[in-house]
Amino acid sequence: MSDWLDEIVGESGFGIDNLPYGVFSTASTGERAARRIGVALGAHVLDVAGALDDPGFATHSLNEFLAQGRSAWTATRNRLQDLLSSARGDGLRDHLHAVDSVTLHLPFEVADYVDFYASLDHATNLGRMFRPDSEPLTPNWRHLPIGYHGRAGTVVVSGTDIARPAGLRVLPGETAPTYGPSRKLDVEVEVGFVVGVPSALGVPVPADAFADHVFGAVLVNDWSARDIQAFEYVPLGPFLGKSFATSVSPWVVPLEALAAARVPPPPQDPEPSAYLRGGERWGIDVALELALNGEVLSRPPFGSMYWTAEQQLAHLTANGASLRTGDLFASGTVSGPSRDERGSLIELSWNGTEPIHTASGERTFLEDGDLVVISGHARTAGGRVALGSVAGRVVPGHPG
Amino acid sequence: MSDWLDEIVGESGFGIDNLPYGVFSTASTGERAARRIGVALGAHVLDVAGALDDPGFATHSLNEFLAQGRSAWTATRNRLQDLLSSARGDGLRDHLHAVDSVTLHLPFEVADYVDFYASLDHATNLGRMFRPDSEPLTPNWRHLPIGYHGRAGTVVVSGTDIARPAGLRVLPGETAPTYGPSRKLDVEVEVGFVVGVPSALGVPVPADAFADHVFGAVLVNDWSARDIQAFEYVPLGPFLGKSFATSVSPWVVPLEALAAARVPPPPQDPEPSAYLRGGERWGIDVALELALNGEVLSRPPFGSMYWTAEQQLAHLTANGASLRTGDLFASGTVSGPSRDERGSLIELSWNGTEPIHTASGERTFLEDGDLVVISGHARTAGGRVALGSVAGRVVPGHPG
Repeated sequence: MSDWLDEIVGESGFGIDNLPYGVFSTASTGERAARRIGVALGAHVLDVAGALDDPGFATHSLNEFLAQGRSAWTATRNRLQDLLSSARGDGLRDHLHAVDSVTLHLPFEVADYVDFYASLDHATNLGRMFRPDSEPLTPNWRHLPIGYHGRAGTVVVSGTDIARPAGLRVLPGETAPTYGPSRKLDVEVEVGFVVGVPSALGVPVPADAFADHVFGAVLVNDWSARDIQAFEYVPLGPFLGKSFATSVSPWVVPLEALAAARVPPPPQDPEPSAYLRGGERWGIDVALELALNGEVLSRPPFGSMYWTAEQQLAHLTANGASLRTGDLFASGTVSGPSRDERGSLIELSWNGTEPIHTASGERTFLEDGDLVVISGHARTAGGRVALGSVAGRVVPGHPG
Repeated sequence: MSDWLDEIVGESGFGIDNLPYGVFSTASTGERAARRIGVALGAHVLDVAGALDDPGFATHSLNEFLAQGRSAWTATRNRLQDLLSSARGDGLRDHLHAVDSVTLHLPFEVADYVDFYASLDHATNLGRMFRPDSEPLTPNWRHLPIGYHGRAGTVVVSGTDIARPAGLRVLPGETAPTYGPSRKLDVEVEVGFVVGVPSALGVPVPADAFADHVFGAVLVNDWSARDIQAFEYVPLGPFLGKSFATSVSPWVVPLEALAAARVPPPPQDPEPSAYLRGGERWGIDVALELALNGEVLSRPPFGSMYWTAEQQLAHLTANGASLRTGDLFASGTVSGPSRDERGSLIELSWNGTEPIHTASGERTFLEDGDLVVISGHARTAGGRVALGSVAGRVVPGHPG
């Protein structure tokens, strides 16, 4: 690597073995026409259109690039890596912007958004809280990766303020629901996968075609209003309790960068159906961190998720549903077995019964003004591949 | 009305008081560039770009027009009505195509797709079948219009073949699930509403702004695999049991045409929360018909739906979720109290226990080769405003 690059990258995890893609603008307005594709290098953004002298990258979204498929992704990555590691790379410095000087936008146009429920510990914890008289895991949980469709139109980029949602919920001591601001606003620490290459309607995508369709990963905060969700979710699942906002990190980290962090996922019992077993498993050792107002609350371990992304892709197309460029599917809350590995406040505060002591005061759920930052990096033999962070501040909801 | 128009329209319900919008192509390939916006007139399609001498209508989707908002919708409708009812309208005949000679395409790009569950009779029937030991209606049902997000990417236009989906389901006499073709493939007769004007994130859309945001209505067949759905749907709702396909009719009928068919919806008890009460109610007297292989199985009455579309719009944005042009929200299965008003096979066959006798044989659920046609028209003082039909034939699923 060139000396200048070494200096820029340092310990950031945004080095030549990462090269995640995003969309930025230098104009403060950030109008569509002013947006360009960039890759992260340390605390800088490399303007790809300029670096590669290719105006195709001077565009407002990654979708066209994502649709080009694996060989194009690899070719572009190789060109960038070659340039950066050669003497010629010095010229790239003209195309760098300090990340603090640019605006980062939602990097892709979200087609459909699916959220899974793939952590054994998270599903067990929620089952215990919501259905204390039953087995914590529903009978289907170990047979298939449970998922549901979320609202694609409210996926927002890191940094977007989150207005406290209102809805019908049953307040403590009452029996009838009333409409008002959620009192149980929560986060969910997740990792999401972004589809590049579409598939045909009626034709399932096998698990071993995962890396031909999925471009890369983002961090996801699936904001959740637990009181709204609790009242509405039987029998058709979460709706308004989730649909007000889902935040994603600005950088999409290519699978090619994450491949170096692959680890064996936990064994599955019973053995899943054949369509969920094809191909290499995609356990990925991503270390996650949930911080509230600057204080780390937990460190959820992504590497031990029960259902992995290639299984989720095979599942969501097993009925013939087609994929589109820009489809996003997220893991569901990542939680480990110990208290400090829980990826949501409902688990950390055991549904509000065990307040969390933080420097900014006691918390069960989020208060207005709270800043939530989820960050993560994949651990590889060579060091770390950063996923960056996804941040959001809670603000009061719209009156009435 | 001009004589020639009178002759063309006849009793079709596609007259000057309807003027629904669709997208057609005369080229058999139907490539995007060859598509144009049309309105239905009897068994003909009027090329709007030609009729109005406005190349803005020579485009592959209604979305841009939908985004223009109510005054633009009204102005275009008035211009078309003026032309058609004046002597000058005779020139429009040059811009007519027989509907049999063109290909009708998906008329708009679907942003998010939400499906509700708004029929009291349907929800009661399904509760009785799926939860025989509980009250048929869940405690939330009368407090809010229950809904969930479906898969926008698999919304297809009428005429698209429906490949039988596969998935995990528990076969009769077995306890463990196995993967294979659905044996309980079903239909749901629904009416869907199409959003034109977007809304801002964080700001609920009040019920009385319904007609400022919603452009019009389509017929919807929400194909459902009941066995896959039954195994997967607890606790996060329907997923693969629904996501393989949703069919819509090719014509979007403007609210302005449907307004003449408004009827008072049934009373609601308990009185819903204030956010669900604002504005005029949009009960609409749409007569629906479900036909299997040419034989009418039932006539579901849309006018008696418990939750109406303006309530559904207010509900789905009550938490601050934003709207996008192209959002589609459907009513949920329309069923009336009597057997011949049920809008799904699971109700008509009482989950397969009471076979339906048809000219093409006994049915509980759909067989390969079955052709399902849902048709409907709104009943107005002046006659009928047709919604047309949504058709689909079941074909065998992808092997393996």
